[in-house]
Amino acid sequence: MNQQIDPWGQVNIKNYENLCKDFGIEEFSKILHKIPDPTLAMRRGVIFGHKDFELVLQAIKEKKDFIMMTGLMPSGTFHFGHKTVVDQMIYYQEKGAECFITVADIEAYLTRDITLEKAREIAINEYLTNYIALGLKPKKMNFYFQSNWKKEYNNLSKFISKRTTFNEIKSIYGDTNPAKITSALIQVADILHPQLKEFGGPRPTVVPVGADQLPHINFTRDIATRARSEFNFIRPSATFNILIPGLRGGKMSSSITESYIAFTDTPETVAKKIRKYAFSGGQATIEEHRKKGGDPNIDVSYQWLRMLFEPDDKKLEKIYNEYKSGKLLTGELKEILIEKVNSFLKEHQRKREQAKKHIDKFILQE
Amino acid sequence: MNQQIDPWGQVNIKNYENLCKDFGIEEFSKILHKIPDPTLAMRRGVIFGHKDFELVLQAIKEKKDFIMMTGLMPSGTFHFGHKTVVDQMIYYQEKGAECFITVADIEAYLTRDITLEKAREIAINEYLTNYIALGLKPKKMNFYFQSNWKKEYNNLSKFISKRTTFNEIKSIYGDTNPAKITSALIQVADILHPQLKEFGGPRPTVVPVGADQLPHINFTRDIATRARSEFNFIRPSATFNILIPGLRGGKMSSSITESYIAFTDTPETVAKKIRKYAFSGGQATIEEHRKKGGDPNIDVSYQWLRMLFEPDDKKLEKIYNEYKSGKLLTGELKEILIEKVNSFLKEHQRKREQAKKHIDKFILQE
Repeated sequence: MNQQIDPWGQVNIKNYENLCKDFGIEEFSKILHKIPDPTLAMRRGVIFGHKDFELVLQAIKEKKDFIMMTGLMPSGTFHFGHKTVVDQMIYYQEKGAECFITVADIEAYLTRDITLEKAREIAINEYLTNYIALGLKPKKMNFYFQSNWKKEYNNLSKFISKRTTFNEIKSIYGDTNPAKITSALIQVADILHPQLKEFGGPRPTVVPVGADQLPHINFTRDIATRARSEFNFIRPSATFNILIPGLRGGKMSSSITESYIAFTDTPETVAKKIRKYAFSGGQATIEEHRKKGGDPNIDVSYQWLRMLFEPDDKKLEKIYNEYKSGKLLTGELKEILIEKVNSFLKEHQRKREQAKKHIDKFILQE
Repeated sequence: MNQQIDPWGQVNIKNYENLCKDFGIEEFSKILHKIPDPTLAMRRGVIFGHKDFELVLQAIKEKKDFIMMTGLMPSGTFHFGHKTVVDQMIYYQEKGAECFITVADIEAYLTRDITLEKAREIAINEYLTNYIALGLKPKKMNFYFQSNWKKEYNNLSKFISKRTTFNEIKSIYGDTNPAKITSALIQVADILHPQLKEFGGPRPTVVPVGADQLPHINFTRDIATRARSEFNFIRPSATFNILIPGLRGGKMSSSITESYIAFTDTPETVAKKIRKYAFSGGQATIEEHRKKGGDPNIDVSYQWLRMLFEPDDKKLEKIYNEYKSGKLLTGELKEILIEKVNSFLKEHQRKREQAKKHIDKFILQE
């Protein structure tokens, strides 16, 4: 195995194709043609891999019950790195999925020292409000907190401790401790509990996650198989997305302000951040750029247009060609992105104000 | 340290005084004179040790709030080996304790493959019914199942995973695995959760346990200290009882029928079991017995009289002397025990029928 994935640490995965080979992920591009109305992230390879996604496709096609399960870590600021998964949540909801979204507040407490109260505030104000503004609906929706969900879910997180060994957990998560084991078992319960009879029984499940969550998915699928005699679980399917690069080219992280654009940033902040920080694929001087051209493959502004902001394939291709030929300068490319981001945010921030009125429709378990 | 205690395995602790020294247990005999209306087990040294019991004595004396916390493993048959702890439950309840009794159904599932349904049936029919017949009242009583208790309890079992390390758990429990870690953390939450503000806040707690539970108690007390800044726990106090010997002299175990008398045994079964199996401290022949006398210290019939069935110190002393001198034969000693046991059981079995009508008063959380 050439690559190590540590779901607890920093990741910077360079070669997603090798990742598919090394970890037995199917390439998403091979099934793209079967998918009705694919999202931008599906079309543009941001979602690069999957496991058993055909099960979910079949349920969509036959209009059968299926589950969309995902979660949020209530820390930091909601930013564009989170949008790929939210777009998928909304996509699966529109295709008929029953949705389960967990707020990982116990995990935040265990691994990041965040209190339940603080986690609740962040989950609602930062995450849920933006989800609603982006289009998530309360229909067939279970938005829940790990610290405050039904007993069958709680019990499942304990039952499954019997289906693994310390050495397995160590081999998956590296150095470990009781808090990490507890977190891992809760995460498995998050993904599998919607298939308990009390929640509607076994159904295909799609879990849209970042590539860094691959070990969790594999672990959960193994546990599902081992516990099949008792619970009759269908192994959950997953899609894997690459991580949207941070503005400066590294990881986008809530703890590094200059790595992301927040959904609450002002137009001035957006312009300033992109002009100042966006990593450029251009040349050192205008003359050199005109002559040699830029490299869109490493240019963050271009990549953000590709992954997030320019749905029109023809327009994107034009930008690509003009940047590569040197016709389009880095500064001009950045201005295209700034206009796109601010246009999106203007509309989004209006919707965000509306969204606050609908929060109560999502939080039922009080 | 001369002795190893494995709370998961078989134990046969021979020297309880050394145990006190090795594990820092205070000798119970030294505070006996301060205890109002001590139980038989307290008077006779069955309860041989304690930790911080003065805190509880003070609460009793000053008529302040305190907690009695204990649990039951819902497997097998309720027998006389269980009675010492039940007598204590009732004693503390009469002294004003708020009682918490956990049915360890999650632990039974994890460590003994017992389903929740089966655990429930055993807990009610075998344990709770006998507790009520022995005198337990529904007043200030929280009789709960680990699988079905309040969310703050559930969350605590997860929160405390942050307060320990894998190496600590390994050093306490020996070979370990995720299911054992999960069980251990739930047990800590069982003992500490009555002090959460949602359950009444920090108060002295007494946990009456067998000597085999000492590592759990130490672990729980350490966690209480480490989590003090967050929860303000008072370190729980504990009393330690020796294990009542099985009829044949080894461990009394639900899985070995000839090691115990059940509370549902008929007079004929009682007589047969004691005559056939009770380990004797007598000599090989009557002649030799008359000459050399018997050894009451190893004679199970005598020990059962001392620990369970003969509250009158003078009568017990007479039996001791007569057996030791050879005046009382093993067969005669056994008949004394048989009469005592059957007399107790006749009354108990009548109360047991009455008790069934009161079960609903104990099981509220449904």
